[in-house]
Order: sequence, then structure tokens, then C-alpha cells
Amino acid sequence: MSPLAASNPYENSEPFDLSLDTDDLDEAMADDGNLLTEIDHIAIAVRDLPAAIDFYRDTFGALVEHREVVDSDGVEEALLKVADSYIQLLTPTRDDSPVAKYLEKKGEGLHHVGYRVDDCAAALQSVKDNGGRVIDEAPRPGSRGTTVAFVHPKTSFGTLIELVEE
Amino acid sequence: MSPLAASNPYENSEPFDLSLDTDDLDEAMADDGNLLTEIDHIAIAVRDLPAAIDFYRDTFGALVEHREVVDSDGVEEALLKVADSYIQLLTPTRDDSPVAKYLEKKGEGLHHVGYRVDDCAAALQSVKDNGGRVIDEAPRPGSRGTTVAFVHPKTSFGTLIELVEE
Repeated sequence: MSPLAASNPYENSEPFDLSLDTDDLDEAMADDGNLLTEIDHIAIAVRDLPAAIDFYRDTFGALVEHREVVDSDGVEEALLKVADSYIQLLTPTRDDSPVAKYLEKKGEGLHHVGYRVDDCAAALQSVKDNGGRVIDEAPRPGSRGTTVAFVHPKTSFGTLIELVEE
Repeated sequence: MSPLAASNPYENSEPFDLSLDTDDLDEAMADDGNLLTEIDHIAIAVRDLPAAIDFYRDTFGALVEHREVVDSDGVEEALLKVADSYIQLLTPTRDDSPVAKYLEKKGEGLHHVGYRVDDCAAALQSVKDNGGRVIDEAPRPGSRGTTVAFVHPKTSFGTLIELVEE
């Protein structure tokens, strides 16, 4: 079922107050309907992490806000802040990590997109309910203290999607 | 030259007002240093645009805010709003469009990332000044009335980057 089937907040309410601020209205509708609250990060697989960090700093002035080695995923990551989102530069820490295999097969470039959600379990359930294939059957710890789950690209038009709850 | 070499706004100023709100300070520093003000969009190449739109609506409640055929690029696009950013679903309108060639060679999936900038010409110049290869030598019209320029993936670690000025 689509999350859009949620009830209309204006149903059965008093007649509209015509002084209603339309920005408030837009905000209420967005909060009501979209499980994706932000592009959390765009993940980019690179072979030389320090060189990629230098490129974004020197060319655009985008700076590293967080670095972390995620042993379970076999990656080292650097997060560069852009407004409320991140550029996530990823490099493998061992030859058998998924990112190492990705680099070998497809080369450097866009690897996945992370969408921020209020409730990772609920968003993951919505994927399953709509026939989507998941990689993580249940939410698990992600980097920088988040809770995450990956959705398989096969049922999402070729895009590896990460759901990120802060 | 890095945009970070821009002059320090606190140089030659009066001694710090210690009541300065640190949020204001962070904001000033970000405005000063980072040419990328937002992830404008993440572009995804798909074969069946209506089916992809249905997937994002039914699974996540993400809705189309804008649709456009861009004849010069040989694409039809649908923009789905996520906070201040967009998911840009792209499909080719003719066999010789770059997106058609991309689909043939790599299949569906993440195609490029668009970063919002205040001044497309200045950001493009910074790419050139830092040895980056560009696709558009000068800014040109993009969809929804924007001014854009593409940066070649060869010098940006495999990522096709679009600079977007609203």
C-alpha cells in the first residue's frame, strides 16, 4: 500500500482559515506523504581516498566532516558535508569487500544513494510490501551511529538504495 | 587555486564578540568555503519512466513535481522532490542520445549527480583552474529554467558532475 493512502489531515476539519500560510501547508503535506526526508548521501567508490578528498576540497571547497572505517563492510569512508547531505567517498579496505568487487567490475564512480528516513524499519517494510527485494532483511548499524538497510538494485531500476535513520 | 584560499572574514576585524552564536559562525564559514550549496539532484537512467515514477510513489510516497522533455539532450525527465533536492528520473527520447548509449552500455542506474551552486560560471572556472576536464566549456540552459554545466568524469574519479544554478 502506498504511504500516500494516509488520511487527509484536512478532512472533517473546520473550513479553511484563508490566512493559512501556504508554506505551512506544503510542509504538512510533505511530512504526511513522503518517507524520504532528505538525500542523506551520495556514495562514490574511489581507489585513492586521499586524492579524491583533495579533489573535492581544492575544486569546490567541500570538506571532510567525518571519517570512519566500517570493518563489517570492508570500507573506509569520508563524509563531505553539502548543506544537510553528504558526499560519501568510499574505498575498500580488503580485496573481498563489495566495494572492491564493484571497482574491479565497474570502475570508480557513483555506487549508491542513501535516503534519510524517520523510521528505517517502516521504510524497509514499505519496500517489502511493494514487492521490492531487500539486501538487509532488518535494519542494522551504519556509520556515524545511524541505523541503515540496503534495498537491492534489481527491483529499484538499477539503483542500490540505502535507507538511513539518524 | 582552492576556493578555501578566500580571505578570512575575521581578519582585521574587531576582537571577537564572545556572545557570537556558534551556529551563525558555522553558517558563515560554510557560505565562505563551499561552492556546493546543495545536492540539487541525483539522476537515474531508466528504460520505463512511468514504471519508475510508480515505484517511487508507491514505495516511498515521493511525487513528481516537474516533468520536461529536453530535446537538446534527447531525454525526458521527471523530478521527484526530496526536501530541497530532487530524484531526477531520466529516459532517452531517441536512440542516439547520451542516456540511450549509457543504458545500452551500463544498464539502468545512477547516471550523474547535480550540485547546486550560486554561480555556475565561477564553479566551472574553479574546475578548470584545478585541472579538471569539462564537458561544457561555458554554462548553458538546463531543465526547469536552470543554468548548468557538466564536468567530465575522467578527472572527477568516475563521477559525471552537473553544476546547477537556479
